[in-house]
Amino acid sequence: MPVALNETHDPTRKSFVESANAPGSDFPIQNLPFGIFRRAAGEPPRLGVAIGDQILDVAAAAASFEGPAAEAGRFSSVPYLNHLMSLGPQVWSALRLALSRGLSIEHGDARLREHLTPMAQAEMRLPVAIGDFTDFFASIFHATNAGRLFRPDNPLMPNYKYVPVAYHSRASSVRVSGKPFKRPRGQRKGPNDAAPSYGASRNLDFELELGIYIGAASELGEPIPIGRAAEHVFGFCLLNDWSARDIQAWEYQPLGPFLGKNFCTTVSPWVVTAEALAPFHTAAFARPDGDPAPLPHLDDAEDRAHGGLDITLEAYISTETMRQTGAAPQRLTQTSCALLYWTASQMIAHHSSNGCNLNIGDLLGSGTVSGPEKSSWGSLLELTTRGTVPLTLPGGEKRGFLEDGDEIVFRGYCEKPGAVRIGFGECRAAVLPAG
Amino acid sequence: MPVALNETHDPTRKSFVESANAPGSDFPIQNLPFGIFRRAAGEPPRLGVAIGDQILDVAAAAASFEGPAAEAGRFSSVPYLNHLMSLGPQVWSALRLALSRGLSIEHGDARLREHLTPMAQAEMRLPVAIGDFTDFFASIFHATNAGRLFRPDNPLMPNYKYVPVAYHSRASSVRVSGKPFKRPRGQRKGPNDAAPSYGASRNLDFELELGIYIGAASELGEPIPIGRAAEHVFGFCLLNDWSARDIQAWEYQPLGPFLGKNFCTTVSPWVVTAEALAPFHTAAFARPDGDPAPLPHLDDAEDRAHGGLDITLEAYISTETMRQTGAAPQRLTQTSCALLYWTASQMIAHHSSNGCNLNIGDLLGSGTVSGPEKSSWGSLLELTTRGTVPLTLPGGEKRGFLEDGDEIVFRGYCEKPGAVRIGFGECRAAVLPAG
Repeated sequence: MPVALNETHDPTRKSFVESANAPGSDFPIQNLPFGIFRRAAGEPPRLGVAIGDQILDVAAAAASFEGPAAEAGRFSSVPYLNHLMSLGPQVWSALRLALSRGLSIEHGDARLREHLTPMAQAEMRLPVAIGDFTDFFASIFHATNAGRLFRPDNPLMPNYKYVPVAYHSRASSVRVSGKPFKRPRGQRKGPNDAAPSYGASRNLDFELELGIYIGAASELGEPIPIGRAAEHVFGFCLLNDWSARDIQAWEYQPLGPFLGKNFCTTVSPWVVTAEALAPFHTAAFARPDGDPAPLPHLDDAEDRAHGGLDITLEAYISTETMRQTGAAPQRLTQTSCALLYWTASQMIAHHSSNGCNLNIGDLLGSGTVSGPEKSSWGSLLELTTRGTVPLTLPGGEKRGFLEDGDEIVFRGYCEKPGAVRIGFGECRAAVLPAG
Repeated sequence: MPVALNETHDPTRKSFVESANAPGSDFPIQNLPFGIFRRAAGEPPRLGVAIGDQILDVAAAAASFEGPAAEAGRFSSVPYLNHLMSLGPQVWSALRLALSRGLSIEHGDARLREHLTPMAQAEMRLPVAIGDFTDFFASIFHATNAGRLFRPDNPLMPNYKYVPVAYHSRASSVRVSGKPFKRPRGQRKGPNDAAPSYGASRNLDFELELGIYIGAASELGEPIPIGRAAEHVFGFCLLNDWSARDIQAWEYQPLGPFLGKNFCTTVSPWVVTAEALAPFHTAAFARPDGDPAPLPHLDDAEDRAHGGLDITLEAYISTETMRQTGAAPQRLTQTSCALLYWTASQMIAHHSSNGCNLNIGDLLGSGTVSGPEKSSWGSLLELTTRGTVPLTLPGGEKRGFLEDGDEIVFRGYCEKPGAVRIGFGECRAAVLPAG
């Protein structure tokens, strides 16, 4: 387990912020995810921590902290989490401990109440100045499902069980939850078209992913040993790798996805720290009999035992008609990150295995998280067999791919006996017309 | 032509820095490329402009400038060119004009001599804080040559003549000329190997490319019309997209190149501005009869007439033995950017055609610049038929791919009657053992 359990994980600790103690809360005192918020339009961005339905202004709170936690507070009135990341794991942990104590009933500092802002009033910002964004392909179920649709005779490439396959994606177009985006235009060519044409994508899709933020850098030319990889992780988010399947299908040979992906990626505003997730580490995905063992540089006993993450991910859809008629969002899928073929540490060890350096603020996506059953598939590509078997929504609407006005909402959470539920909040965005 | 000719292009203008007036100089007064330098170790980085064998400290010089050029100077003591870029094309041009006059014999300000540093004494730095790095595949000769080696039955994909194919590459590992790098390790699998193994790459290669720096941003969701694309270009550099062919061949299906590329990319220290290159625009590559016309969003009469760039690129090799015996570097290839199938404006229009936003400091690579003849192929993959037909070097050494100690040097220049030769300087780096 990369981070040891400590008093911040104590399931009996409660916060004086009552809403944090509600059973279904995403943000109990055991979570304490970081984000960047503004209290109102025109105000400067601030480093915040989520507690119940409130946001604590960390810089203001840290005035009463001591030691390394105070250091983190001094620099927290900055527009991104990168500075906090740069202070290193000991400071992250000290700040978390100070916040856990300060917001608790037993040790709490009631003066912190003055520095709370209701989430309902705050504007959340993109939390991290993202350096490079790398997207993996770590679900063997997704790789097989997607491969079958693009290459029926050759669904899973021979490298898949050896290489944590990934591609570089686009950092500039990552947006925070809540920002709608325009349906992309691009080149599409149907199987019966003589030539491609340029126009609005007809096959717009979501991809349900886990995001991993790098909080500690590595040097060029210096691979990160798998046993040290977890030390480079600051935290996790929900990530929607919006995909235009028609653009992707026409463009992706031979150099991979490009315009089919880089028009927008949506991330959740709250970064759940690696430390908060410590109780929810689990065994890495058990490779089926006959699968090769990972090569030695990707194999580690500790990672095999605890490198998996038991995070439940869900995707919901809400169409314009559903919102007008007051229908609740419809769940499309429910899956778990524990089903990923490759662990976060394997992704990091692989990424740096050739000497590629990681920087503070780099973002890694897991790739679509799909499980073995249809109810756990993480994209419409899979759920509708590339649009050919549409889903039926409440009210009778059909969806092969996304239509204008559709909103996709991701939720993520960890639950297990003996631990307090930890949530990721939401990652949501709606599709605007191509315009 | 994206930038009009003006007095800075006047071929009769000479500089009071004598070395700039020598016929073979890369840096005459008509060039004035920008870079970031340090006068000595421990000194702060400064914005510089190359003139002959000297570097002018722009911030110091700008104290005597007026108008927008003075504005550029006030902010030039910063570690990257991004701030200058952010001031916009009118300021770039005003600064260039002030530098051209200030360094000229006829209008010159001799006080500027005090702010010159010999290049031989200066340390050049990475000139730009790179946001996203995108690498294109714009040479049809390279695409065909490379395709034939990886896919003998299917060398050129059906999308090639419609799509300016590109992939996202890695910004964190871009280094400035002169920095050696370690041979990457990675997974390789020979055709007769039962399984891959992890070890030092055996097929290390260079790729001779032109780099394009974006100097003006675009908004998410707003495609850049091809007729406006050139306005987003600040300047150009030489770019070596080092490639490990064995790692690349094993990993690249289905999501494209990743660890085979991202261990290091080397760029030249001097950024030759779009304005300096105005005299060397030429017709876009003439598509052979039978090739489809570009789709309308990639087609522009002005771009067809002037969108090509007549920049000669050369690559040289110098092995450890050659250096020990005093042998001159051996030229491996000589090619021209005018042979690219896609222009810079087409690349930019395509990149943003789905709404992907470009940021100040983004870097685009052209992809390997190869011509139709073997003497103009821009990688060892092509020159040695994937290592199977080694080159013979002075002293009898053979090279299929690069060996430790090999240094690759790129040079680039523009020459034509009636214009003064403009050079790019060098882009050089040596291969260190995997260690």
